[in-house]
Amino acid sequence: MSLAIRLEPAGGEPLHIRIADSLRGQFEHGALGPGDPLPTSRDLARDLGVSRSTVVRAYEQLTREGWIEGRVGRGTRVSDRPTSAKGRPNWDLLLTERVRGQSPEYADVLRMLSEPDLLSFAGGLPSPEFYPEESFQQITSDVLRHQGTKLLQWCPVDGYPPLRSWIAERVGCEPDSVLISSGSTQALHLISQAFVEPGDTVVVEAPTYSGALRAFRTAGARIVSIPCGPEGIDVDRLEATLGRVRAKLLYVVPTYHNPTGSLLSTEKRRRLLAVCAQHGLPVVEDDAYATLRYDGPHVPTLRSLDDHELVLYVSTFSKAIFPGLRVGWLAAPPELVRRLSALRNVIDLFTNSIAQGSLYEFCKRGLLEAHIQRVRPLYAERRDAMAAALRRYCPSLQFEVPHGGLFIWAQLPAGIDSRRLLEEAVELGIGFMVGSLFFAEEGGRDRIRLCFACHSPEMIAAGIRKLGLALKQVRPDAEEWRNAGADDLIV
Amino acid sequence: MSLAIRLEPAGGEPLHIRIADSLRGQFEHGALGPGDPLPTSRDLARDLGVSRSTVVRAYEQLTREGWIEGRVGRGTRVSDRPTSAKGRPNWDLLLTERVRGQSPEYADVLRMLSEPDLLSFAGGLPSPEFYPEESFQQITSDVLRHQGTKLLQWCPVDGYPPLRSWIAERVGCEPDSVLISSGSTQALHLISQAFVEPGDTVVVEAPTYSGALRAFRTAGARIVSIPCGPEGIDVDRLEATLGRVRAKLLYVVPTYHNPTGSLLSTEKRRRLLAVCAQHGLPVVEDDAYATLRYDGPHVPTLRSLDDHELVLYVSTFSKAIFPGLRVGWLAAPPELVRRLSALRNVIDLFTNSIAQGSLYEFCKRGLLEAHIQRVRPLYAERRDAMAAALRRYCPSLQFEVPHGGLFIWAQLPAGIDSRRLLEEAVELGIGFMVGSLFFAEEGGRDRIRLCFACHSPEMIAAGIRKLGLALKQVRPDAEEWRNAGADDLIV
Repeated sequence: MSLAIRLEPAGGEPLHIRIADSLRGQFEHGALGPGDPLPTSRDLARDLGVSRSTVVRAYEQLTREGWIEGRVGRGTRVSDRPTSAKGRPNWDLLLTERVRGQSPEYADVLRMLSEPDLLSFAGGLPSPEFYPEESFQQITSDVLRHQGTKLLQWCPVDGYPPLRSWIAERVGCEPDSVLISSGSTQALHLISQAFVEPGDTVVVEAPTYSGALRAFRTAGARIVSIPCGPEGIDVDRLEATLGRVRAKLLYVVPTYHNPTGSLLSTEKRRRLLAVCAQHGLPVVEDDAYATLRYDGPHVPTLRSLDDHELVLYVSTFSKAIFPGLRVGWLAAPPELVRRLSALRNVIDLFTNSIAQGSLYEFCKRGLLEAHIQRVRPLYAERRDAMAAALRRYCPSLQFEVPHGGLFIWAQLPAGIDSRRLLEEAVELGIGFMVGSLFFAEEGGRDRIRLCFACHSPEMIAAGIRKLGLALKQVRPDAEEWRNAGADDLIV
Repeated sequence: MSLAIRLEPAGGEPLHIRIADSLRGQFEHGALGPGDPLPTSRDLARDLGVSRSTVVRAYEQLTREGWIEGRVGRGTRVSDRPTSAKGRPNWDLLLTERVRGQSPEYADVLRMLSEPDLLSFAGGLPSPEFYPEESFQQITSDVLRHQGTKLLQWCPVDGYPPLRSWIAERVGCEPDSVLISSGSTQALHLISQAFVEPGDTVVVEAPTYSGALRAFRTAGARIVSIPCGPEGIDVDRLEATLGRVRAKLLYVVPTYHNPTGSLLSTEKRRRLLAVCAQHGLPVVEDDAYATLRYDGPHVPTLRSLDDHELVLYVSTFSKAIFPGLRVGWLAAPPELVRRLSALRNVIDLFTNSIAQGSLYEFCKRGLLEAHIQRVRPLYAERRDAMAAALRRYCPSLQFEVPHGGLFIWAQLPAGIDSRRLLEEAVELGIGFMVGSLFFAEEGGRDRIRLCFACHSPEMIAAGIRKLGLALKQVRPDAEEWRNAGADDLIV
């Protein structure tokens, strides 16, 4: 190959820039086209009489601009895809691994669920029709009237002090053990940023909350999964696994688990804590759903059973009242809260202080408790309506009826892929979450998560009837992935 | 040294746990005390007849629990500090480098400034006495009344659509180029998470916004500084530096710079963009202060002068109205906004939707513009009052009067350390920001930043008079760090 590199007379430009300019000119004028090979950096350096690192820098510059690409075994070539104009950054090449590595599956499913007028059982959300808007509006007005100047200005990073104290009392700790966050999602982001270096191991339940999986993965975690069934996480498997892997964190949703709805017994909670204490392993307890209890036993939080300061406790107002305000919290030893606050300061300073002030008033006046008492039987009624409709219209599905929370987790008949079922369901006007989103590894293709909170019993019946129709329309898959089950999930 | 390791009979416990248990027992019973040496893992493995990696794991477990510590050249020893009880995690050892590596200086200064009743010139904040609380309260009530159900439930990750459109029109782009964030701080966090891998170079002005320094450092960036004086960033130095370093991002505050107040001329903006285009280098333009213009020329944003899609534009409502709502935004090419939204989804889902809805109504009704028109002359008056008071009470300080923004950046007399001056000032009841916080490397000890927006001209005069007293009380430092100036800041 002949390559005519003409280096313009030196005008203060570094040599590698001049080499890049010359090559770019040849791409722009078509002397070299997509797929054409470039000489190795060694050869070109020798031909031009410059150091090899100078050529490497010129190639790197052109790679960033999208003009050329290198592939193992193929050498460096002119890029196939339309290159950007000179000087325009090639954003894709500039992005970090944590962004480029994001799985498209979650976004794909959200796109499928974004159909207008879908009767959706997908979101993990409370029901807006029960929202105490009028009282909340009154309280917000009061708060703006009496404390607007203060609250619109600034707020401590760790939270509005009266709300912090209220949460501390409820959790059973001191206020300086509480950090108020923008939803529990942010608490999980903070924890993963604070504890997970790329390659560190985080142990989770399988299935588990998909947002937690994304948070830990974004921090570069290696995920190790422990099966979680109708009785919660398998503590024996946890114990065996912790003997083999060196973990940085364990993440669990012990109460009305997302997505399975399971409730871990007090005895198993004690065993889980003993196993983790043996390894000095911190436990992230995600307690988003505890207030939504419909029947069954009261079970104490892991935090309240913890004698070893193992538990980082995370919760939120998003399930008990409404998610739009983005207020959650974590409870941890005070020295750790100080560290996490300093990190939080870098992330977004503090949580909207009007929201914090209004929520505090709402809680202080007893309205949170009243709201929870009011919605519990209504949600229980919807849970029962969904269970009845599933038995009637979808007899081939298997599921347990949860004692609390927002979800029914159902197993599909052999060979039915939940993603294909969702396609049919969306055609018929209903939506749900596909099971695979809740697994770090392969798994869950035969499961779906249905939120029963957001629609009336009548709408639930109508929607589940359509789910039954969709089930009839999906032909079982020949491929036998069904039995690639729990055993494959364990590292 | 004799060490009696008794391995309990195997009861399902992995070997390394049993070794750790045995050693822990000896620490707990005082057989081994603080500072006592432990055998090397090689020796202990030989003595016990186990593999070396088993002993390494036992030692790692005890290190995590805080019982033992290893130091280069000293071997492994029983930890000096009070160890935690068995099973209790040693949080400090578990934290990531990004948290452990946080400089304590910023927190120290904030602590000094947290004195009650301080007349503070420290914060970069607008003045609460001008807040349009009544109209905002009315709007928030309306929004909750008419859209509460919708907004309290959920909001797209990229922002409340009407507000996104309003911002897009103002910025001069399409709505899908806008991502609404929880303050511009979060936009900077997103950008640093999206572009900075540990070790990547980010080029900044020196001095620059300390929150940006913290965001980039937390992502592991190597910071390269370019001097920024009364006329803004030194574009010649930028050009020379970019010829030598391979940078991932350039971060600048070209309009009413924080902390210097400088305004980069249109001509220099064009040159800056040309230099960056030559390297395909993305430019983060932080435009938080642009609306606060008091006199001097209108200068177009870098974004509006950019022909190469180089600019990631960041701004906020926090300086133009109030920071308590935590609403800011970034503008970027749509495909990049989609990527950043997916990352945002992991960080905290979305920004408080009531705040977004209320701000939209506030802007749509023209109240933002009216507010800005109202406060400009008031802030200009305060700027002039501060300049006059500085000339009168602190004639040894040097400073320029800025055309906009919130700050006066002043140079102290030779040998006066701003940190020591702050100690004296706090004693006298006033506060300011020390200059060193705005530099990535050494520098700024002879500078202070004074915010003139938050107090009346009379209070400003009284406060600056006290600053003059504090200056008289601080004796110049013998150490000559003053001339360790701009040249040392350049990599």
